[in-house]
Amino acid sequence: MAVVVRNTTRTGLDIVDALGRFGVATIHEAQGRTGLFASHLRPIYRPARIAGNALTCEVAPGDNWSIHVAVEMARPGDILVVTPTSPCDDGYFGELLATSLIAHGVRGLVIDAGVRDVAELTEMGFPVWSKSINAQGTVKETPANVQTPIVCAGAYVRPGDVIVADDDGIVVVRREDAEGVLGASQQREDNEQEKRQRLANGELGLDMYSMREKLAQRGLTYSDESDA
Amino acid sequence: MAVVVRNTTRTGLDIVDALGRFGVATIHEAQGRTGLFASHLRPIYRPARIAGNALTCEVAPGDNWSIHVAVEMARPGDILVVTPTSPCDDGYFGELLATSLIAHGVRGLVIDAGVRDVAELTEMGFPVWSKSINAQGTVKETPANVQTPIVCAGAYVRPGDVIVADDDGIVVVRREDAEGVLGASQQREDNEQEKRQRLANGELGLDMYSMREKLAQRGLTYSDESDA
Amino acid sequence: MAVVVRNTTRTGLDIVDALGRFGVATIHEAQGRTGLFASHLRPIYRPARIAGNALTCEVAPGDNWSIHVAVEMARPGDILVVTPTSPCDDGYFGELLATSLIAHGVRGLVIDAGVRDVAELTEMGFPVWSKSINAQGTVKETPANVQTPIVCAGAYVRPGDVIVADDDGIVVVRREDAEGVLGASQQREDNEQEKRQRLANGELGLDMYSMREKLAQRGLTYSDESDA
Amino acid sequence: MAVVVRNTTRTGLDIVDALGRFGVATIHEAQGRTGLFASHLRPIYRPARIAGNALTCEVAPGDNWSIHVAVEMARPGDILVVTPTSPCDDGYFGELLATSLIAHGVRGLVIDAGVRDVAELTEMGFPVWSKSINAQGTVKETPANVQTPIVCAGAYVRPGDVIVADDDGIVVVRREDAEGVLGASQQREDNEQEKRQRLANGELGLDMYSMREKLAQRGLTYSDESDA
Amino acid sequence: MAVVVRNTTRTGLDIVDALGRFGVATIHEAQGRTGLFASHLRPIYRPARIAGNALTCEVAPGDNWSIHVAVEMARPGDILVVTPTSPCDDGYFGELLATSLIAHGVRGLVIDAGVRDVAELTEMGFPVWSKSINAQGTVKETPANVQTPIVCAGAYVRPGDVIVADDDGIVVVRREDAEGVLGASQQREDNEQEKRQRLANGELGLDMYSMREKLAQRGLTYSDESDA
Amino acid sequence: MAVVVRNTTRTGLDIVDALGRFGVATIHEAQGRTGLFASHLRPIYRPARIAGNALTCEVAPGDNWSIHVAVEMARPGDILVVTPTSPCDDGYFGELLATSLIAHGVRGLVIDAGVRDVAELTEMGFPVWSKSINAQGTVKETPANVQTPIVCAGAYVRPGDVIVADDDGIVVVRREDAEGVLGASQQREDNEQEKRQRLANGELGLDMYSMREKLAQRGLTYSDESDA
Repeated sequence: MAVVVRNTTRTGLDIVDALGRFGVATIHEAQGRTGLFASHLRPIYRPARIAGNALTCEVAPGDNWSIHVAVEMARPGDILVVTPTSPCDDGYFGELLATSLIAHGVRGLVIDAGVRDVAELTEMGFPVWSKSINAQGTVKETPANVQTPIVCAGAYVRPGDVIVADDDGIVVVRREDAEGVLGASQQREDNEQEKRQRLANGELGLDMYSMREKLAQRGLTYSDESDA
Repeated sequence: MAVVVRNTTRTGLDIVDALGRFGVATIHEAQGRTGLFASHLRPIYRPARIAGNALTCEVAPGDNWSIHVAVEMARPGDILVVTPTSPCDDGYFGELLATSLIAHGVRGLVIDAGVRDVAELTEMGFPVWSKSINAQGTVKETPANVQTPIVCAGAYVRPGDVIVADDDGIVVVRREDAEGVLGASQQREDNEQEKRQRLANGELGLDMYSMREKLAQRGLTYSDESDA
Repeated sequence: MAVVVRNTTRTGLDIVDALGRFGVATIHEAQGRTGLFASHLRPIYRPARIAGNALTCEVAPGDNWSIHVAVEMARPGDILVVTPTSPCDDGYFGELLATSLIAHGVRGLVIDAGVRDVAELTEMGFPVWSKSINAQGTVKETPANVQTPIVCAGAYVRPGDVIVADDDGIVVVRREDAEGVLGASQQREDNEQEKRQRLANGELGLDMYSMREKLAQRGLTYSDESDA
Repeated sequence: MAVVVRNTTRTGLDIVDALGRFGVATIHEAQGRTGLFASHLRPIYRPARIAGNALTCEVAPGDNWSIHVAVEMARPGDILVVTPTSPCDDGYFGELLATSLIAHGVRGLVIDAGVRDVAELTEMGFPVWSKSINAQGTVKETPANVQTPIVCAGAYVRPGDVIVADDDGIVVVRREDAEGVLGASQQREDNEQEKRQRLANGELGLDMYSMREKLAQRGLTYSDESDA
Repeated sequence: MAVVVRNTTRTGLDIVDALGRFGVATIHEAQGRTGLFASHLRPIYRPARIAGNALTCEVAPGDNWSIHVAVEMARPGDILVVTPTSPCDDGYFGELLATSLIAHGVRGLVIDAGVRDVAELTEMGFPVWSKSINAQGTVKETPANVQTPIVCAGAYVRPGDVIVADDDGIVVVRREDAEGVLGASQQREDNEQEKRQRLANGELGLDMYSMREKLAQRGLTYSDESDA
Repeated sequence: MAVVVRNTTRTGLDIVDALGRFGVATIHEAQGRTGLFASHLRPIYRPARIAGNALTCEVAPGDNWSIHVAVEMARPGDILVVTPTSPCDDGYFGELLATSLIAHGVRGLVIDAGVRDVAELTEMGFPVWSKSINAQGTVKETPANVQTPIVCAGAYVRPGDVIVADDDGIVVVRREDAEGVLGASQQREDNEQEKRQRLANGELGLDMYSMREKLAQRGLTYSDESDA
């Protein structure tokens, strides 16, 4: 009953690459604090930062067959996003599959499961965000869906949505929101640059953000140790 | 109902810095195996080692407002120790707050929650021990206590207690015990130096520590594989 | 009631070292996907790869006494494999014990518990795979078995079985299977070399492994986005 | 930036109630093994079984304000489905809110977070599936979305999708699939009734499902203990 | 180096028993949302509710010796509160110790570790809140502190502080705060009684608590599904 | 490559049933504190207690095919012990398989994975110890070994070893040790009966076990609160 959807829409790589210049935390804030993957996904090496079009792929537990199917759907600039149909920590992915993905222009992997060959993947410079590192391999008995909407580590991802991943985590930006989020991210970053300088000079956030009155309204009081 | 306590007592930086020359494991043993933080707090980069006065700070779940309040209480040589009032993995802290803390002489952060901007924090050399790394940011709606006694990752910490953190973990030394623990730590280290040399020469711990008789009393026996 | 078994059989170091040239994932597949340790054991530094004879050691919770007993049983080329008799995250092992093991030719440590002094162990180049890093030390009150069969992180290990550990995890090869597994591992690796080249050239796994027909039989279908 | 969507479409209660006669496992299989919530959600008492229209609700971490907003959107036959915008174990929900929901015809609660007053909820017979039980309450400072699509415990849920929950877990059936899944569930159950009788009579599944040949093809062999 | 403190102060049982009439959630709120134990401690049977004076006891990992020491310190109306000096899931406590505690008037056990004999404890009606249920017993080799301040499951507890435990969790009330918290708890409960009635009649919390204006100020908006 | 071993040796049911009169904790102690399964396996209903011969069965992740194979190997008095070849929480087992096992005299199930139909299994009175409860079903694509030695939840189990399970957990007794462990268990229980009575009368364990001198030797001291 598995299906592969061909000819899915993608986001233009100019927008994807522009989004990739911002950190995940910035983009997450810029789009109203939505779209973050759960924090149990971690990069296998640091630092790492990529952006790309989501190439979505489900896998059966302990079975990586559909990753092979997904490779054929890959286009340059994609990021493979893999989710198991039930939780699994097996090592679904290693350097042979990475070699194949690189040959088709894929920029990295996000997987809510395990990977192996991490020494080789690190040496190859193929970035991976995974739930675990695990030498346990998989079988090829049960195909699953490719390029359909999926939930991966708590995030809802459709083919061609934009994925940005860095040392802090992973965020998905919906295709239709990509351009707007790009603008909002730039605004946040411009805004932060000035603040950074003032904080480095010792100015207090309490003053810079005018927080003192609101804090008092919410019940914050001050006392001295000697009062206790 | 949150309170900020001003003018809290601190431990002298000469003692703090002297304690910082010892590893966390040594100090923990030297003070009778007390004061250790739970091992789920891990450094965001390694190696890292710091010592400082505890600047304590509670935070509401998903809300980092009181960290901004804590910055004003910071003195050079402090380490910010943050605990959420209920468990939370959000990214409470990033490079803007680190910039601010550095400007006020704070040496690092210990937080039983998440942080973000870890690539930037690593580059800045601002050491952090955290429960998680997470791009998920926080709001500023609910203030919480600053510079009151807290429980952080299972350790009871009062403002001005000494915090020492390294690759193995984090330990708190009570203000009133700091000088005594310093002496006991030095003794342990002197003692270990001679043992290290003897072990490197192949001497057995069984002999060096005269364990054989006590092991026999506790029921240890030897047999040969061929006996089985 | 603890026992130490002396004069246990070991696997020849020529075979051990030959197995050590292969990755854990390769060996695991070559021996029918058996013998893997659970993936919660992770190296304290990367990259790391070792092979050796299992020197097995049980420890009581929070008590590392039997590790001292195990050192006397060590032979050059051994890997110390430690399992607690009930789950424990304490730091059972540090640089003094590592110094002692190195003096007796031990190549590394696999432990389903915690270790400390990881900065020093990293500097010494003594590889460790552990469940946690923890400054919490242990006592010496209760001896446990040394060189008896154990279950460590889900793997059944007998003294003198071969242990191979790398960045992906740890695998045990039974003494009596070592030579056969060596041959099968070599075959797998030879086989992969050719595939790697073809995948790098862009050939699809679907074609290289002739998967298309079998996938169709198992119910995989293709559609176009515009069909939806 | 939070939004409440009014006048959302619901599934007819005749179909909802008909689905509620089947177990979660049956429905999950009947719709192609999709739509299951993660198994960390557990009923606070057993046995329990309900079906209803999803009334979706996001909450900020440690903040249950939007649950109060959701009550106004409730219609008889709804099940409240709550997901925090970042993971949280706090006790978001207790007997006062249950009293209010019951007054508006809501049949139960599914929440990827904690609840409290479980003794009272059990006595009231208000069924709840939650991630934890926790006396820790919440604040009311930050509203979040109500009746928008959400991801809850790994399941993608839209307002008015059908939720069925029992002792085994929780499943969502998409509005547009509800009628078809109802038929398929009935078929599965009819089919199982006959099998149950045959198995009770001692017939082997191997024979009843004609598995022997396929097992042999997949490499299963038999030996006798005495052969070893 | 372990110490037992005799003749510790206790809270009057009239106040203890009066506090025991309120739920843990109510008391926790009434004392400013402090003093809660982590929610991983769960009752071994439900329903259960007790209140008593804390009889504090540390234990070494896998070693329950100091529980025997603590029994001698017990006074009628106490609740034994046990914390391991490093995390441990062993079954520290069973029906023999419960028999002994009951004989000395102890009302129950709170332990951040495991217990066993839960069938017998349930039959005896001896309430226990624990981290796990585990047949794995313990040794008696290493004494630890009794009746000293401890951290148990994240809560700071001193001998003679009041412990209240029910199906929702466990809370500690400081001796010196007990009377004040009693009054505040009564106030909360009186207040809730009227609200419960109004909610049961279908009044919305939004109206009863006058939340609508504040919600709008914080950015909540309403739309209709047909707008999307 | 999977194998089924026929005609395996079993332990006599007279010994099995005699062992089943003792609790798991008693047997575990009686055989030198060995053979316990990890405590994450929990009964789906309580109270429950069974004893039987281990019928061992491996399963592939997300695949319960070999359980069907195992049924044919069942003999009256067996307990099915199932372990996945890599960790998996899926619901491998439900009421149809239970119906089949009951027809062949199997007394219960121990599984380091998930089960479903727990309402039905509870009603049928078929006892199960599992890692999770999960409606997620499994496929039938990959057979695995039946009646070979396995590691299940950290315990090494061979076909025909004795399994005893109760509310506290699960223990395996080796075939060859069963008779000896039976005697040692009886001795422990006889011994406890007298102690129980003395403890119920208020006698202190400190005196009954003559612990005071040994505690003093190990460094336990007493002080009064007023000394502090």
